[in-house]
Amino acid sequence: MGNKLRLIPLGGLGEIGKNMMLFEYDGSSLLVDAGLMFPENDMLGIDYIIPDFRYVLEHKDMLRGILITHGHEDHTGAIKHVMQQLDAPVYATPLTRGLLEVKLRDARLLDKVQLHTVNAGDTVHIGPFQVELFHVCHSIPDGVGLGITTPAGLIVHSGDFKFDHTPVDGWPTDYAKLAEFSGRGVLALLSDSTNADKAGWTPSEAVIDPAFDQVFREAPGRILVATFASLISRIQQVLNAAYRHGRKMALVGTSMVENAKMAQKLGYLNVPDGLIISMDEALRLSPAKVVIMTTGTQGEPSSILGRLSEARNRQFDLIENDTIVLSSHPIPGNEEMVHRTINKLLQRGARVIYDPIAPVHVSGHASAEEMKLLIHLVKPRNFIPVHGELRHLTQHAAIAREVGIPEENIQVVENGTVLEFEDGLLRVGERIPGGYVYVDGSGVGDIGPSVMREREALAQDGFVIINLRLDQSGRLVGQPEIISRGFVFVRDADELFTAAQEQITQAVARANGSTPSAQAVKDKVTQVLADFFYAELKRRPMIFALVNDA
Amino acid sequence: MGNKLRLIPLGGLGEIGKNMMLFEYDGSSLLVDAGLMFPENDMLGIDYIIPDFRYVLEHKDMLRGILITHGHEDHTGAIKHVMQQLDAPVYATPLTRGLLEVKLRDARLLDKVQLHTVNAGDTVHIGPFQVELFHVCHSIPDGVGLGITTPAGLIVHSGDFKFDHTPVDGWPTDYAKLAEFSGRGVLALLSDSTNADKAGWTPSEAVIDPAFDQVFREAPGRILVATFASLISRIQQVLNAAYRHGRKMALVGTSMVENAKMAQKLGYLNVPDGLIISMDEALRLSPAKVVIMTTGTQGEPSSILGRLSEARNRQFDLIENDTIVLSSHPIPGNEEMVHRTINKLLQRGARVIYDPIAPVHVSGHASAEEMKLLIHLVKPRNFIPVHGELRHLTQHAAIAREVGIPEENIQVVENGTVLEFEDGLLRVGERIPGGYVYVDGSGVGDIGPSVMREREALAQDGFVIINLRLDQSGRLVGQPEIISRGFVFVRDADELFTAAQEQITQAVARANGSTPSAQAVKDKVTQVLADFFYAELKRRPMIFALVNDA
Repeated sequence: MGNKLRLIPLGGLGEIGKNMMLFEYDGSSLLVDAGLMFPENDMLGIDYIIPDFRYVLEHKDMLRGILITHGHEDHTGAIKHVMQQLDAPVYATPLTRGLLEVKLRDARLLDKVQLHTVNAGDTVHIGPFQVELFHVCHSIPDGVGLGITTPAGLIVHSGDFKFDHTPVDGWPTDYAKLAEFSGRGVLALLSDSTNADKAGWTPSEAVIDPAFDQVFREAPGRILVATFASLISRIQQVLNAAYRHGRKMALVGTSMVENAKMAQKLGYLNVPDGLIISMDEALRLSPAKVVIMTTGTQGEPSSILGRLSEARNRQFDLIENDTIVLSSHPIPGNEEMVHRTINKLLQRGARVIYDPIAPVHVSGHASAEEMKLLIHLVKPRNFIPVHGELRHLTQHAAIAREVGIPEENIQVVENGTVLEFEDGLLRVGERIPGGYVYVDGSGVGDIGPSVMREREALAQDGFVIINLRLDQSGRLVGQPEIISRGFVFVRDADELFTAAQEQITQAVARANGSTPSAQAVKDKVTQVLADFFYAELKRRPMIFALVNDA
Repeated sequence: MGNKLRLIPLGGLGEIGKNMMLFEYDGSSLLVDAGLMFPENDMLGIDYIIPDFRYVLEHKDMLRGILITHGHEDHTGAIKHVMQQLDAPVYATPLTRGLLEVKLRDARLLDKVQLHTVNAGDTVHIGPFQVELFHVCHSIPDGVGLGITTPAGLIVHSGDFKFDHTPVDGWPTDYAKLAEFSGRGVLALLSDSTNADKAGWTPSEAVIDPAFDQVFREAPGRILVATFASLISRIQQVLNAAYRHGRKMALVGTSMVENAKMAQKLGYLNVPDGLIISMDEALRLSPAKVVIMTTGTQGEPSSILGRLSEARNRQFDLIENDTIVLSSHPIPGNEEMVHRTINKLLQRGARVIYDPIAPVHVSGHASAEEMKLLIHLVKPRNFIPVHGELRHLTQHAAIAREVGIPEENIQVVENGTVLEFEDGLLRVGERIPGGYVYVDGSGVGDIGPSVMREREALAQDGFVIINLRLDQSGRLVGQPEIISRGFVFVRDADELFTAAQEQITQAVARANGSTPSAQAVKDKVTQVLADFFYAELKRRPMIFALVNDA
């Protein structure tokens, strides 16, 4: 690989370079982020997806460090799998480190991993890479972008970012640092493409405050605000609104309680004395004096919001005049579940407020005009859109052309495509494995397309098992036993299964004529039943015939 | 039921009164619409969903007519199921009738059904109901709303509507008729709530023309425009753009070709001579002289667009410089599939244009300001939001309050809730079955929650079958046979299944001590394997043990 600088986006479903990105130079490498993705709706039974990082494993001796840009799952959620197989120091800002520690402790890896706290503004030397961390606004505090000085030139990596002039924590994205980079000459900018198809500017987090004020003014009873457990700035905004409107706040849900505690301890959450109370205390107060924060914004049936929507929550239930605020957007693919939960909450008599009914959530990612600003601030020679599906990257590339980056200096690539810099020129190199790996239960990567096709077939039409007993001359003994699941409602299927037994009996009798093998009987019975069930019901269950000697 | 006027929204997933609505007065009834819904992502194996109309069946002698407001699937798609079981004349405008005829012919019901052509502006007497049809703009031509004069008063039903001042067919919604209704006094307005959470006005179809002009100007090669087969006005807009830019147009896909033919014959599509050519001709022309219209905007793998995205289309494939326009929005729940298709088309080198990249599609439903306009035009005493999920209806009710309808004169109800008018007062009456019925293959309503739970379990972790042979003293003969699907990748699972056999052998031996029944052996083996597989893989496949005598 010589003295080329190589950039390799890795893993993660459609999104490119989001969950993991590898930088290589002269036999040394730096891994940026170790995230997971949630499965799409047709990835049946899959818990989550992690990057296929076998290339990093095969070159593990090169790895000098792992840097995590911020604390969201899609950047941290694979850390357990990575640290089980790789050995390198991990660098993160304080809040991000706190969130990583929880994961590593759960996986019993905390003692093994060498964690280093770094801060925005720091410069860290990792192998041949001099990494300058700069602050970026995002929907979690303490996020950073990276200025990576390599012998081949300076690469700027935006991380997940937006330009918020009035962020909740008062800490805007570090414009000065970005401008300074441009003064030094930037070989390439890697920039977050998530909202490339959104025109204009993403609204500031500050627009949420007046929306919350209205909710707090008008709510006749309790207020329940649901958001992501990692959205520390939203917890702060609800705290502030509670303070302004004379309410006390209770947090429920393990992840939210733990994150809030950690954020408060580390100074990322500013809590007026006595404002946070326990849920038990909240249940004793007058409803108009209470706000409850919880998770469950994605319609997860097991979450507190999901349980409340179906009257299945133990600690407390909805009461008259409850106002529920969903301070979140559905993650793509979750729309149906989220909307169903909203409908059920309305059905139970709650008032429900969500975007677009009121602006109670904003995106944490830059929109088109912010993307243009970043390019103008950084003035890169080359531009590489990352963090998004191919359609977002393609649009981000169009935006970059619009603001003057020459077409030949822009590369849109997919995960596993190596980008090489040599003598200041950007070139597309080889392809390495850059796909993703299914995690199902404790199995990592054992489920592939064939098992997925089986699950798909079973989900469509279920299965039927036939248990046959044949005597030595191949004659059927007794009635064949039929078991089915997911095919028909068994209690109403007597007639169907009686007719199926008749079909089996005839098939065995016909097969019998030519003294067939057990396999031939199985094949015949399976075929006859497949035809029979399709003719009867236009369904194609999986069919298995078992042949036993009588 | 006396002399009360009763309105009953029926069927259809979350959407209320969209697929079917029943009007009853003094022993006579009128059914409005007979539509289907597409299943949500977790309704495994279901083809589509129809309203549970058993109440209409139980009172079939009351039914005087069926009126279909427009030709979309969610208003026509259940006509086959309805006409198989009910006997009443069907009323529809010419284009809607044409689309119904295709469905009835396919179901061999055309001869049986008494179809009446009606037109916007007509008054039809159906039992005690005097129905005035008025034109509404929507994303299909020839849609109507209804003014239903009953002895209890005048009910206005908006149908699916928007207020488009510059519709493609030049025929705006009938403001004059709406105003005339208000002069006569309207007892209640039933109004389309689909876009109740969208502020402002839905853009006119006319905004698409400049977007198409830009696409046609800039496309270096062929243009493929994908849209819904029923979007006749979009076909007209592409025809117009083709004419303006000197291209010929080919249509592909049976439904689109048939709909275009019918619309042209009935005068709903205005085609300049020679502009439409066959696909074979299109393939011989210079790419820059061609536009192809097709379906597949929902990411369906079997559609032409789906096949093109995976290089599986037979008649033609993508070529260099193809521009693909998705003139559509994803139906809720289809977002992932649509985005995946776009990504694959980009991956194959096509240029892909879709909303929000460019305004190449607009909604066919009114937004909040149009909803307010309708209420002001009609001046109803009572307001009943329909056509939407509960969250849309709730928001539409808030809009109605905003424009002065008193809270007590607004009713938000769910499907199956009877609304009664007596002496000018609106009251919520009894609940009747108002749910939906799954259609799977040729089975209608035989699949319910229990089969769905089985499919869900199979989709999650698959199944395992154990075939055991026991001798007369309950000892295991030979090795148990293990079959699994959707659980593990069988070719890599030798070790797991060998260990499972060992578990089974031990379980049978232990069970053996107490001379157990076959059932006890089954239960024991099932339990032991469930524990074993969970300990090994954290998965919970369905497990079935079959016990045969050796």
